[in-house]
Amino acid sequence: MNKVITISREYGAGGHTIGKRVAQELGIEIYDKDIVRETVRASGFETEVVQEEEEDVSKASTFLKSLCSSSVHYRDPQEVIHEVQTAVILQFAKKGPCVILGRCADDILRESDMDVLNVFIHADDLHRAVRISEMTGITNATELQKLMAKKDSSRRNYYEHYTHKKWGDSHNYDLTLDSGKLGVDLCVQMIVEAAKAGE
Amino acid sequence: MNKVITISREYGAGGHTIGKRVAQELGIEIYDKDIVRETVRASGFETEVVQEEEEDVSKASTFLKSLCSSSVHYRDPQEVIHEVQTAVILQFAKKGPCVILGRCADDILRESDMDVLNVFIHADDLHRAVRISEMTGITNATELQKLMAKKDSSRRNYYEHYTHKKWGDSHNYDLTLDSGKLGVDLCVQMIVEAAKAGE
Repeated sequence: MNKVITISREYGAGGHTIGKRVAQELGIEIYDKDIVRETVRASGFETEVVQEEEEDVSKASTFLKSLCSSSVHYRDPQEVIHEVQTAVILQFAKKGPCVILGRCADDILRESDMDVLNVFIHADDLHRAVRISEMTGITNATELQKLMAKKDSSRRNYYEHYTHKKWGDSHNYDLTLDSGKLGVDLCVQMIVEAAKAGE
Repeated sequence: MNKVITISREYGAGGHTIGKRVAQELGIEIYDKDIVRETVRASGFETEVVQEEEEDVSKASTFLKSLCSSSVHYRDPQEVIHEVQTAVILQFAKKGPCVILGRCADDILRESDMDVLNVFIHADDLHRAVRISEMTGITNATELQKLMAKKDSSRRNYYEHYTHKKWGDSHNYDLTLDSGKLGVDLCVQMIVEAAKAGE
């Protein structure tokens, strides 16, 4: 059986770093931007349109609908992109053990017969602000706070729109970790242990 | 600094067993029924009344209010019991490293200067039903399902009434674990690791 690890995460909680290190330690693939690239290739939509769909479900919907409103056989392009992305995620997961970041992968793979470990990473605002400041160069506290709120809201909306479940509700995950409290090293260690335990 | 581990848990998810084993491995105290006993002693209320208050916030409130409705200096006894229990939990936590089960201990200790690790344990219905069946001898599936729903609802109401937070929301905990998926042994190991990491 494959062991697929899905990592959902708050912006700035270190989920990407943790995911990369878990993949390295287990010697498996990690998929993040590859999902966007493959969705672009398979759907025919532009990269910006696919990214937009991820970043703002409602906005993308309006934008994309306006693009296609004259079409006779109208189909919501947002839904098309999501369907293609779902297929891409399933395709990647079937290739073999891997880490998949975000994009409702936990929900997409839930009904599959694959062995999946679902993880959610969060952290307090202070730890996240420091990490985001390092990533973006932003040093203004208000700006950092606004950015966190915007990104969280976008990830929450996306997750809840497609899964009809609460983002960050522990019941949706096998393991949730506060990376601020536990530290990145321990988070990596725990995910690796949980992945190995299911072998 | 003390290391207090609070464990909130769904009924039948093995939180009590996990808590006991964590306490054994770390050689520290575990408080569960002791909290009720000490609250009874300190408040002067009967054991049944204190337990009732934990089991059904709304029901207890009505029952206790009716007891005291003739009092001139009326004070909601439910609130009194909760205040005493809060003091009892703080007193236990100050004694030294320990595990505290349920009773909003995570929220009670959040603003303290103690070093606290907050854990939530959940599991799928199947794993829980098997465990509850072993504990209670009930073998009827419908009865087991009703019992789980009732106990969860009671714990959720109690938690949300006093903390104004969502029971089981990962943001309230440093670590949440699906004991059905991960198994009791791994849950114990992870909590012990997280407790030791903060030393």
